[in-house]
Amino acid sequence: MILTSELEKIYEQNKERYIREWFELLSFPSISTSETNAKDCTDCAEWLVQHLNNMGFKTRLLDSTSRPVVFAERIGNPDKPTVLFYGHYDVQPVDPVDAWTTPPFKPSLRDGRIYARGAQDNKGQLFHTLKAIEALTSINALDPTVKIILEGEEESGSKVISDGLQKWKDILSADILMVADTNMVNNDTPTIIMGLRGMAYLTATLSGPDHDLHSGVHGGTAPNPAQGIARLINSLHNDDGSIAVPGFYDAVTEPTDKERDLANATPIDPQTYEAETGAPPLAGEMQFTPVERNGFRPSIDINGITSGYSGQGVKTIIPANASAKITARLVPDQIPEKSLQQIINHLKAHVPAGMKLTISDEGSSGPGFRLNPDSPLTQKTISVLAKLSKNKPAFLWEGASIPIIAGLSQTSGAEPLLVGFGQEKDNIHAPNESFSLDQFKLGFLYSALMLGSL
Amino acid sequence: MILTSELEKIYEQNKERYIREWFELLSFPSISTSETNAKDCTDCAEWLVQHLNNMGFKTRLLDSTSRPVVFAERIGNPDKPTVLFYGHYDVQPVDPVDAWTTPPFKPSLRDGRIYARGAQDNKGQLFHTLKAIEALTSINALDPTVKIILEGEEESGSKVISDGLQKWKDILSADILMVADTNMVNNDTPTIIMGLRGMAYLTATLSGPDHDLHSGVHGGTAPNPAQGIARLINSLHNDDGSIAVPGFYDAVTEPTDKERDLANATPIDPQTYEAETGAPPLAGEMQFTPVERNGFRPSIDINGITSGYSGQGVKTIIPANASAKITARLVPDQIPEKSLQQIINHLKAHVPAGMKLTISDEGSSGPGFRLNPDSPLTQKTISVLAKLSKNKPAFLWEGASIPIIAGLSQTSGAEPLLVGFGQEKDNIHAPNESFSLDQFKLGFLYSALMLGSL
Repeated sequence: MILTSELEKIYEQNKERYIREWFELLSFPSISTSETNAKDCTDCAEWLVQHLNNMGFKTRLLDSTSRPVVFAERIGNPDKPTVLFYGHYDVQPVDPVDAWTTPPFKPSLRDGRIYARGAQDNKGQLFHTLKAIEALTSINALDPTVKIILEGEEESGSKVISDGLQKWKDILSADILMVADTNMVNNDTPTIIMGLRGMAYLTATLSGPDHDLHSGVHGGTAPNPAQGIARLINSLHNDDGSIAVPGFYDAVTEPTDKERDLANATPIDPQTYEAETGAPPLAGEMQFTPVERNGFRPSIDINGITSGYSGQGVKTIIPANASAKITARLVPDQIPEKSLQQIINHLKAHVPAGMKLTISDEGSSGPGFRLNPDSPLTQKTISVLAKLSKNKPAFLWEGASIPIIAGLSQTSGAEPLLVGFGQEKDNIHAPNESFSLDQFKLGFLYSALMLGSL
Repeated sequence: MILTSELEKIYEQNKERYIREWFELLSFPSISTSETNAKDCTDCAEWLVQHLNNMGFKTRLLDSTSRPVVFAERIGNPDKPTVLFYGHYDVQPVDPVDAWTTPPFKPSLRDGRIYARGAQDNKGQLFHTLKAIEALTSINALDPTVKIILEGEEESGSKVISDGLQKWKDILSADILMVADTNMVNNDTPTIIMGLRGMAYLTATLSGPDHDLHSGVHGGTAPNPAQGIARLINSLHNDDGSIAVPGFYDAVTEPTDKERDLANATPIDPQTYEAETGAPPLAGEMQFTPVERNGFRPSIDINGITSGYSGQGVKTIIPANASAKITARLVPDQIPEKSLQQIINHLKAHVPAGMKLTISDEGSSGPGFRLNPDSPLTQKTISVLAKLSKNKPAFLWEGASIPIIAGLSQTSGAEPLLVGFGQEKDNIHAPNESFSLDQFKLGFLYSALMLGSL
């Protein structure tokens, strides 16, 4: 049994090197949604291959047709459970880039926090896991076989890795699917993720006139796509916040009483929520608590709207078209492809007079899933976390999606183990993303203790 | 009495010079809504001063605090009615600039049309009027005193000229307010504008979270301003296309039966409308004909919406805020300030839970007005137009606004005379604005005959 104090000593001795290497990883602008950053993703993957080789892993690229999938393996004791660790090296776009205090790909350490795009999601959390594996290896304490798979398309649909799963079924087989890509419920409580939502997405574009029209000459006569998109978006929800798409709720599985109680044991406090996000938790189906809405209810969210003029002053036009980016978060047993089609059918049924609807960039990235709170792995995780925090861990049915987890779990035969150390203030997906060194160290200790205790 | 044939001869002799000078005028990027183009507006105004001086006018800048107001005068026979000609040298923004075949401020002649921002609105139409005045002067046939006022803020609210009206009351006094800034009802029918709508405008911004949130972690829980702005925009209209703002229709003056009949004598053909605009005339209050909706009914139009992500691929955020640019077209006897306040009150009453509304850039640019179809000036205009076209002129109650006309008419004591030669295909306010040389010549002939017949 490895002692926490021993791991802390290793951490402090190597901390400066860890940060230096972490900064290298963060400096790649590996934005997967942008074609102009494709080369940066490849460069980042190659840096990881080199790094894993240096750590004593046998490493290769499984697929390089798009952003490469990095795979690494270190054979251990065959009597121990095999661990498959999953992470992603791609990051979200950085706009509005003007809102960043320091450039997103020039990592900066300020007041005990590392600021950079990906500082937490997911380069920070994947890197503390790699450093934990390295630390165990350095003291000959890494027993299980460890497999590592790192993809570069998590933020853009995980297509290459999803497509490859069946092909790689044998090499991926494992007992535990370890992931560090999630948040704690608050700043002080270790959190075991018991479920994730699935996701489907699309872009809806309404076109009206074939060019921008003069809003004086045509106002109140020509179809206005800016008004049309507002109408279309508004049609997706009822006045009570519920989703108005026919059939959308049909497949939703209700949580068990135990799941509901465990989730509500860590309620979202409206004041804390507002302090962290700037807004009160007043959206969605108000008959459910905020944790229930997040964990057990699906949602349809508008990620962006673009239409017409947005510059300085007044421009008197009726815009030729309008677009909305729409994502849906799905729960068991909603089938993403089916939910997506329900939304598309609904949109088609609500196209305003005189306009045309085009659906583009549509797709889905895996269904939602829920884990068993009574499994032995969950119990072991609770005991490891007890060594690192005086607070009992929270059980969280997470609102977010890690698109590939359901597929990886199914293919590898492994039970997901989802413990992450992100905090709300990390501002992931937003300007000034950051991760604290304290959380980085906590993640390092947890990963090492967990891998050392199997 | 001047003969049309004589004017045609002058036109053909000078055509090349006219176009060369017109190109110079079009090359100024005098976009009044943009601060970065302020100097271009001043340069354009100075070019006009020089040009009018060369035409024998006594010219000066009335106000140069913002975009200068150019004023020119040529004293004529005191027994003749004094004509005040109004035009504007500022133009609309040019985005999306990629959609232009040739750059907006490098005028290009293709297939008998001049392509440039402002080619028609209003540099084209003001310039054919100046050339008509020049032509009459050259043959000693310009009898009336002619005053010319050219502003540089028509597309951005006409603030400086509006503010100056009372101060310049004496120098502006006139009998006829001549304007060439309007369209023909179709390609072949000379058109007398019998009314214009007024306008009020504002920008509505909804804010929710204080930064973009992860739409997985917060979807269905945090207030979503993109959905909020859709709801807010949608609340402005009823399902039947009418405006839902309380009290908005209270002051609307119904047209007389004669006005309604004259307007409907030139109906908007839905097929033609769709061919010209790319969309059928299916918006607004469908119980009114399209010409009635345009001329006699107010409208509220969305000119643009901006919220969240609009780039390539998917970005899973709940945007921190969302903005909509809104204009209202008003008819007699709606008071713009009052209508604006009604809209603001309505928006305030519909702010979705958890969001904050900010109103900015709000203002109004004059009320709407209607002219008398039986006045002697209208009758004279009909007889002049009869010399230039086999088609009887149409009477059009125009949906657009020329913000300053109502104010100028009131201050100068002059009866508006609104005849313009724009065509729908000119794409004013849109990419690839153009004006045909045939229409330019027609405008030249009309202006000269009209001024020569007073």
